[in-house]
Amino acid sequence: MDRVLLEKLKKGDVSFHEVGHMLDAGAAIELRRTAVSEITGTELKHISNFSFDAEDVTKHNIENMIGAVQVPLGVAGPLQVKGEYANGNYYIPLATTEGALVASADRGCSVISASGGANVRIFGDVMTRAPVFRAKDVIGAKNLVEWVSGHFQRLKERAEGTTRFGELLSVEPFVAGRSVYLRFAYDTKDAMGMNMVTIATDAAVDLVLEENDVDLVALSGNMCTDKKPAAINVIMGRGKTVSADVIIEKEIIMEKLHTTPEKMAEVNYRKNLLGSARAGSLGFNAHAANIAAAMFIACGQDPAHVVEASNAITTMEPADDGLYCSVTLPSLAVGTVGGGTRIGTQQECLNMLGVAGAGNPPGTNARKLAEIIAAAILAGELSLIGALAARHLSNAHAALGR
Amino acid sequence: MDRVLLEKLKKGDVSFHEVGHMLDAGAAIELRRTAVSEITGTELKHISNFSFDAEDVTKHNIENMIGAVQVPLGVAGPLQVKGEYANGNYYIPLATTEGALVASADRGCSVISASGGANVRIFGDVMTRAPVFRAKDVIGAKNLVEWVSGHFQRLKERAEGTTRFGELLSVEPFVAGRSVYLRFAYDTKDAMGMNMVTIATDAAVDLVLEENDVDLVALSGNMCTDKKPAAINVIMGRGKTVSADVIIEKEIIMEKLHTTPEKMAEVNYRKNLLGSARAGSLGFNAHAANIAAAMFIACGQDPAHVVEASNAITTMEPADDGLYCSVTLPSLAVGTVGGGTRIGTQQECLNMLGVAGAGNPPGTNARKLAEIIAAAILAGELSLIGALAARHLSNAHAALGR
Amino acid sequence: MDRVLLEKLKKGDVSFHEVGHMLDAGAAIELRRTAVSEITGTELKHISNFSFDAEDVTKHNIENMIGAVQVPLGVAGPLQVKGEYANGNYYIPLATTEGALVASADRGCSVISASGGANVRIFGDVMTRAPVFRAKDVIGAKNLVEWVSGHFQRLKERAEGTTRFGELLSVEPFVAGRSVYLRFAYDTKDAMGMNMVTIATDAAVDLVLEENDVDLVALSGNMCTDKKPAAINVIMGRGKTVSADVIIEKEIIMEKLHTTPEKMAEVNYRKNLLGSARAGSLGFNAHAANIAAAMFIACGQDPAHVVEASNAITTMEPADDGLYCSVTLPSLAVGTVGGGTRIGTQQECLNMLGVAGAGNPPGTNARKLAEIIAAAILAGELSLIGALAARHLSNAHAALGR
Amino acid sequence: MDRVLLEKLKKGDVSFHEVGHMLDAGAAIELRRTAVSEITGTELKHISNFSFDAEDVTKHNIENMIGAVQVPLGVAGPLQVKGEYANGNYYIPLATTEGALVASADRGCSVISASGGANVRIFGDVMTRAPVFRAKDVIGAKNLVEWVSGHFQRLKERAEGTTRFGELLSVEPFVAGRSVYLRFAYDTKDAMGMNMVTIATDAAVDLVLEENDVDLVALSGNMCTDKKPAAINVIMGRGKTVSADVIIEKEIIMEKLHTTPEKMAEVNYRKNLLGSARAGSLGFNAHAANIAAAMFIACGQDPAHVVEASNAITTMEPADDGLYCSVTLPSLAVGTVGGGTRIGTQQECLNMLGVAGAGNPPGTNARKLAEIIAAAILAGELSLIGALAARHLSNAHAALGR
Repeated sequence: MDRVLLEKLKKGDVSFHEVGHMLDAGAAIELRRTAVSEITGTELKHISNFSFDAEDVTKHNIENMIGAVQVPLGVAGPLQVKGEYANGNYYIPLATTEGALVASADRGCSVISASGGANVRIFGDVMTRAPVFRAKDVIGAKNLVEWVSGHFQRLKERAEGTTRFGELLSVEPFVAGRSVYLRFAYDTKDAMGMNMVTIATDAAVDLVLEENDVDLVALSGNMCTDKKPAAINVIMGRGKTVSADVIIEKEIIMEKLHTTPEKMAEVNYRKNLLGSARAGSLGFNAHAANIAAAMFIACGQDPAHVVEASNAITTMEPADDGLYCSVTLPSLAVGTVGGGTRIGTQQECLNMLGVAGAGNPPGTNARKLAEIIAAAILAGELSLIGALAARHLSNAHAALGR
Repeated sequence: MDRVLLEKLKKGDVSFHEVGHMLDAGAAIELRRTAVSEITGTELKHISNFSFDAEDVTKHNIENMIGAVQVPLGVAGPLQVKGEYANGNYYIPLATTEGALVASADRGCSVISASGGANVRIFGDVMTRAPVFRAKDVIGAKNLVEWVSGHFQRLKERAEGTTRFGELLSVEPFVAGRSVYLRFAYDTKDAMGMNMVTIATDAAVDLVLEENDVDLVALSGNMCTDKKPAAINVIMGRGKTVSADVIIEKEIIMEKLHTTPEKMAEVNYRKNLLGSARAGSLGFNAHAANIAAAMFIACGQDPAHVVEASNAITTMEPADDGLYCSVTLPSLAVGTVGGGTRIGTQQECLNMLGVAGAGNPPGTNARKLAEIIAAAILAGELSLIGALAARHLSNAHAALGR
Repeated sequence: MDRVLLEKLKKGDVSFHEVGHMLDAGAAIELRRTAVSEITGTELKHISNFSFDAEDVTKHNIENMIGAVQVPLGVAGPLQVKGEYANGNYYIPLATTEGALVASADRGCSVISASGGANVRIFGDVMTRAPVFRAKDVIGAKNLVEWVSGHFQRLKERAEGTTRFGELLSVEPFVAGRSVYLRFAYDTKDAMGMNMVTIATDAAVDLVLEENDVDLVALSGNMCTDKKPAAINVIMGRGKTVSADVIIEKEIIMEKLHTTPEKMAEVNYRKNLLGSARAGSLGFNAHAANIAAAMFIACGQDPAHVVEASNAITTMEPADDGLYCSVTLPSLAVGTVGGGTRIGTQQECLNMLGVAGAGNPPGTNARKLAEIIAAAILAGELSLIGALAARHLSNAHAALGR
Repeated sequence: MDRVLLEKLKKGDVSFHEVGHMLDAGAAIELRRTAVSEITGTELKHISNFSFDAEDVTKHNIENMIGAVQVPLGVAGPLQVKGEYANGNYYIPLATTEGALVASADRGCSVISASGGANVRIFGDVMTRAPVFRAKDVIGAKNLVEWVSGHFQRLKERAEGTTRFGELLSVEPFVAGRSVYLRFAYDTKDAMGMNMVTIATDAAVDLVLEENDVDLVALSGNMCTDKKPAAINVIMGRGKTVSADVIIEKEIIMEKLHTTPEKMAEVNYRKNLLGSARAGSLGFNAHAANIAAAMFIACGQDPAHVVEASNAITTMEPADDGLYCSVTLPSLAVGTVGGGTRIGTQQECLNMLGVAGAGNPPGTNARKLAEIIAAAILAGELSLIGALAARHLSNAHAALGR
């Protein structure tokens, strides 16, 4: 190791970023890690262990890399999924450090599979970006809104000129005084698509600016809405809008969940519906975020999109000697290309599900992944609601989570 | 490897779970991974690489383990933090697969540190659990509410009998018809505390049931509210309620962010405030979730709590030849003991920040971590708003995110 | 008066409703009032005073009538409005019992008119009704959603067969498990239109039921959303979506509001934006509901629609030596025909604004009314924010409200 | 009439306001009305009819008065209420122009009374005002928060020095960066109390300013939250927090509502709970706002508070051969003194309910009114949900609303 460079790095004479231009990926990583280790006086030996291609990852996924974090990976299943893209039994990869989560999901998978599998359907599929413009006044705002409605085709051409796969589906205007938000919605096929839609919208924005007397304030005006809890995503959708359901016989509930359909329906009613209503919540579920987070980390998804995934609605209703259960995810943003999907361990998890890379036709792999995640979230809901109904929650945590 | 057992596992005659009772941790992990690999026909070589103590992790953090996911780790900083618990320069560990994120955070850290550091203050610190009960009618509901207000001390004794560190601070009742929600709020010291409060509340619930004519429906009634977007967490707080701010001189903004205080204030105003308002959002920030997710994964936090972290409010206001910037996180749930904090790589990240394990006095490490995260989120906000104001966002993504 | 009938009425042997079939309107009103007066032991002399046509009103506007409530009516203005439908100076009728409200609105009108008037533009105009259906499962839900997208024209024919004026513009589906909500959106011209769209949607529902294997659960499934605070109305609009704005010179603000543009902008920022954000609000304004309520009661609008009117966003921004002010009302439900618009005093108020009855072409009167209300709400915002900035609020209440 | 003054008034040389200082109330009203009539070219004869004391009303309730609006008044009931303050049978005054509303409420009253009456309980009773301050930074914000927690008694003395009846119960601080909101909560006894708490808080604010290095930005910072939809009111309450419930036998439902308990429970579930959840709503009810608006106008309440009243949660659950029904109103702001309560017709309506003026002990009349309104809203919910379950809604509107 170049101790002179190391000292410069530690003193800040050379930045973490600049080191990347001076050394190859592996050497830069080691030098940075050594610097952090020495500055902070901490040993960083675990962090140095990773098996992915550092050169590739530092180009696409991270800057100032010093190593990797290891997240334990468990598997739940098999989970039978009956979707339009996913059809079969799947082993669900869950990367988590929260004891009891995999066991709980596994139990839910067992309940669903014993009931013949979960139906899953996708109702919407868009990735959005909403720049905000400042018009002169509300008259100017209306002029812009009318211009947009008359020039969709040209906006589409500009936007799609930047991408091989993305398709601009709609541009929805919203006004607040002289601020105008244009929510561009795209089909991004197998990509989660945030980068794609950012670049495409940037190009379309140029056309807006060329032909209208308005100023661009920001390429994202928060009506997208990215990674914040927002009703617009619940209502208009973002990422995949997907529902999964299953009917479970009373016997299975009694045997596997040690409770009854009536009790589970009541827990869901008073907790997921009434309780969330009383709390001013946009999430009417038990713990969709837990399953989403564990699958997102395993499968190289953007974990900040767990925020949107948590906008889920879970229902449980008594149904002819059993229980009807569903989960609806209005805004599940996932992809099978780009982002973290190409990294070694993440790619292997996607392979376990048969969804790595681009689908054929394009978009089918991402939709298949969305269907599987929805079914897995349904499994998680069933298991936790079952545990609450049987009053096993704290026991499970006491046994597994310590 | 025991091929007979492997075949049983593949056929489902032995479950993933049962294997853990038959073999030591390492052998069980390998057998499960082999089974999944063969069933799904996928090679799982990267997943097998990990350096943490498998025995320990399978006991506390995960079930059905088959290996680990590697998440690239970068570092931003140094970031100067002036809190009541954190005071100094910190190197921020960020585990992410989203290109441009670390670079962006790093730029924000540079802006803050050049401005003398970020002030941080903690305004609240509670972890909550809210069981839901069913009374006979609203008369019974009122009886329970009155009983609770007269028996706090006894509830406290029951709850605290289950924990060495936790302190019950309050029990807030909410009613919806005959459903009664009791929101138990605890000081959980250095633990994030979800398990602690679940177990403690379970004990207190017994007292409620002994002395009142009500039924427990569920130990969690969603007024906690855990891992769902919910106004109750914004208003009453959950985890740490923390604010960070900094004043940045115009010259620093022009030099480091290539824009002006006025433009940044306008972006924040039309995007983070007006745009989020127009979208029906509970998050008035740019991308708090991104920084939170990356730090949570690095530091062994529960990544599903990114949902609550995204309830952030960012402000940017012109101020005597510069820009006043703040971020307020009403519900930042973090801890330095328990959960994923003891795993090798995660512990190293906590060590980098000087917050691994229990603080002295108890609670100070978790608070220090919360202050650092808040300052890091402020850095992220500054950088992204700066990029939007300078119209660099899509360029950055095009350059770094591909 | 028929004392025998009176006694029967008092005893409940004859109902309030039945009396309407036995007597003419005036006699029935008197008999009921006498009964209530005697049963409750209260004198009801004021209530007996009214000048509208009792026969007509009891047919269209009320049942079990016993008289009328008198709400004091004041006038603010003139208010200069520069809309696409309203263009000129208007005297704003305000029916209220809250001291200081008319004075405040009047002051705001004066500020706006001195500034050349308020621009107003309408961005959306729909009345909605969203029945909820139960499908067999998510597969059935998707079938219904696809059927709807393929049969809009037939739904439109069915719906429009029930109305002379209404036009069905769109049907937007939403799914939650096996519950399917179809949000029918109509142009209802000069009618506020709730009754019209209820009847029209009822007819369209028959077609849905004839051709799909689903059950109707309720003709309104709350995704309309009628008279409840709901983000869907903020985002997708309900009634008129309308914005008004004005730029006010510094001198006018100092002279008429005794404060400065900077102070008003700060009040609006910290109160209407930050404060509402912190409160988990859907209303980012000061008191839109006050003006809306007073105008609604004066003009025969449905006062429960004040709920939707309160979803307003007010902005105030420093602008070249003055203040830019706007208000945006995403969901202002008003009409000039039907409901209370034909009653004597209400019709006179509408006449004062030149909007009584159907417009030519149809819809223009209701839009004109919406524009005037939006401008009046802007006036109210200006006055109250000005009073807060000058710290006059409590003084005004002390002087006028007691 | 003084034609010279009239001409001046019409030309704007004398203002509507100034006329009040020149003439007695009656003459000023007539002069203004004549001016408006002549300027707008409209006959205003109905508006001139009113029987209340103009002198008194122009002093306390309205400025620039030109007359009164007549709102038809109907009566529903008797409604049996079993509260802690209201106990007996009540005739519900409803001022409305919306056909079918009184009939619907009447039907609901009949159902409740036939079932032995509605239980009602009050769970909270506060009126709030939340000024917003600007501190220097988050350090200053924390200093203020700590000062407040140590000086409650002195704030209470200052606040209560302005009022005979009001009691300051708590001051809750909220921070967003350097903005600090202090939510003052009072018991205002029989007054709705907005004016009282505004004046009292203004006095307390002086103490805050004297002893802290902060600036007052606005006496109301929207965390009150007054007349806007806001989760804070749902969660922390504003006005009365009140629940009403009743169990209805199956026979009564079949006979009076022509449907079944199961159907009503399903309508409530899919409409009021699931539908509102899907719509991003804070109101989980059918039409609480309708009943609230009609009673508020009848009883001299502030009709803009219908906004908060609409934050209601309605539940309907099958229960031993019948239906359990409840409504919970977290934020019902009502009073029996002040505001419009003294005006002739409004006072008569309050008298019908036995709640005019101050209660003995103070506060009991306002609470009694709140209980009656809650029970009446429950009646409205029952009737509308029943109509939807029986698919009678559009018929009712077609028959009564036209």
